[in-house]
Amino acid sequence: MPELRKDPVTSRWVIISTERGKRPSDFAQEPPRPRSGFCPFCPGNEEKTPPEILAYRPNGGPPNGAGWNLRVVANKFPALQIEGELNRQGEGIYDKMSGIGAHEVIIETPEHEASLATLPEERLEDVLWAFRDRMVDLKRDPRFQYILVFKNHGEAAGASLEHPHCQLIATPIVPKQVREEVEGAREYFRYKERCVYCDMVRQERQEKTRLITENEHFVAFAPFASRFPFEICLLPKIHDPAFEDAQKQEYVSLAKVLRETLRRMNRVLANPPYNFILHNSPLRESDPLHYHWHFEIMPKLTRVAGFEWGSGFYINPTPPEEAAAHLRQAEP
Amino acid sequence: MPELRKDPVTSRWVIISTERGKRPSDFAQEPPRPRSGFCPFCPGNEEKTPPEILAYRPNGGPPNGAGWNLRVVANKFPALQIEGELNRQGEGIYDKMSGIGAHEVIIETPEHEASLATLPEERLEDVLWAFRDRMVDLKRDPRFQYILVFKNHGEAAGASLEHPHCQLIATPIVPKQVREEVEGAREYFRYKERCVYCDMVRQERQEKTRLITENEHFVAFAPFASRFPFEICLLPKIHDPAFEDAQKQEYVSLAKVLRETLRRMNRVLANPPYNFILHNSPLRESDPLHYHWHFEIMPKLTRVAGFEWGSGFYINPTPPEEAAAHLRQAEP
Repeated sequence: MPELRKDPVTSRWVIISTERGKRPSDFAQEPPRPRSGFCPFCPGNEEKTPPEILAYRPNGGPPNGAGWNLRVVANKFPALQIEGELNRQGEGIYDKMSGIGAHEVIIETPEHEASLATLPEERLEDVLWAFRDRMVDLKRDPRFQYILVFKNHGEAAGASLEHPHCQLIATPIVPKQVREEVEGAREYFRYKERCVYCDMVRQERQEKTRLITENEHFVAFAPFASRFPFEICLLPKIHDPAFEDAQKQEYVSLAKVLRETLRRMNRVLANPPYNFILHNSPLRESDPLHYHWHFEIMPKLTRVAGFEWGSGFYINPTPPEEAAAHLRQAEP
Repeated sequence: MPELRKDPVTSRWVIISTERGKRPSDFAQEPPRPRSGFCPFCPGNEEKTPPEILAYRPNGGPPNGAGWNLRVVANKFPALQIEGELNRQGEGIYDKMSGIGAHEVIIETPEHEASLATLPEERLEDVLWAFRDRMVDLKRDPRFQYILVFKNHGEAAGASLEHPHCQLIATPIVPKQVREEVEGAREYFRYKERCVYCDMVRQERQEKTRLITENEHFVAFAPFASRFPFEICLLPKIHDPAFEDAQKQEYVSLAKVLRETLRRMNRVLANPPYNFILHNSPLRESDPLHYHWHFEIMPKLTRVAGFEWGSGFYINPTPPEEAAAHLRQAEP
């Protein structure tokens, strides 16, 4: 059973994976991963994944069979375990609880060689609907406090399988960085009586120097204080704390702007490995109204890491204005 | 002139390096760095570095000449610039200031092939003294709020030169993660009327499961909520907020325990790339007494990154108890 442990100084919770415990020899310089040719996410191999939690089959058909556009399955090697009690307890000055949570994989398409940048817009909409449908379902479980949706694209960004997929982790705690954003937005609101993200939308659209693209419902821009080169933020123009409460038409717009932005990024940076993360409200906020959900896209371009992890202090070699200009001028 | 920019939501300051601005093509898959054979940090090449700020020459001799055991020079490609005013200003809802600061390199030894793990203890003591001497000097500059001391060892950990060296960055702000640790320690003290780090020393020495080694003044252990496999904390047994105020005898002890710990790590993990970071009190805390300086060592073993950067949520595949057992049993 994995464990959730809390840092006694910073209150950051960490998953300690006790089951797939890695030994020193597991960290030997990894040889390039051999391509086995077999892909458990490809059509025909449905029985190689854990059973389907959700699937979109435009022409119907039985679960775990053919004919799907998108499947959601449990992660075969989950970071957290779905069954059990939280079992919060102390260990001297330390705090811990059982590693309870959901860890699911959203298989975005049957096409092994596709990507979010190349799929038709309707398929991207499906991916967004799957995020929403799973959130709405998992929210009912009172043990969960947050649902983290993210994508690792490319080996350097942490992807262990090539076939296009996203991941979802439901946790019994609110991750520290989410907590900080929510608190930061609340403090801004207390001081200014305005949403900080709405203010960003306004300023970025006005100044235009960091703007990448926009459509009816979304604006894509390079954040003013970007930590990484070519970091991108996709922000809804309409104030909304929760992704899962967005209007149908907004998912259509988001699919468009996400696809376009990824295509611009791929053009400028030659298909880089990247991560995206959905920043959403915690599930059980008493007063989440100051928060404003958004997407963050981070191409993985620089190697520098350990020092930043240790200090939280980032040096970004590419001004966001320059990054935005390149992305804005690219042919999507 | 580089810029310091503040994230309007989280209040995290970031350095935007406007001068050595990296363009998209600079991020193309880096070919393995060619070894030129020339090293600006080797003896005889003193004129290839910016002029010496500090040097230890046991038998004396003129600056920037031969005979040194250790040299401190300005970084030739500094992330921050030493000359100028802070010039704090707004830009709409955003805040920024000039990228003022010091960025120095501590060349630990004339020996290109040496490392902190192989140098004699007295040379490690010199490195610690150099940290202290530079801190004491830079502290006098009223523009600086924090001094960050760190080491990137190995290319995968961000080192761009092989010759053994550490770095020091003096900043006009307190990095976010430092601020969080200081606040966390303060809150613990307010609640328990004890130092959280002193409590850790006590518990780790008692439980022994995460203990790696200890000597008169220091304890080395794998933190309870380690974010990364084989993360190591070196904590002084005596409560002390500031590294630069330690007793002479403590630097001797620290050199011993640091050397031993690195040797154990090198043995278990086959000389991994690693980072270390000195966690120290901010320079101008009105009440820094709850803080307790320490070293953090992080071997760079796992690739997973972007998702953790975006969420602050870490999955550690190696329980610290297992990591500590390996390190404890290794021949240093």
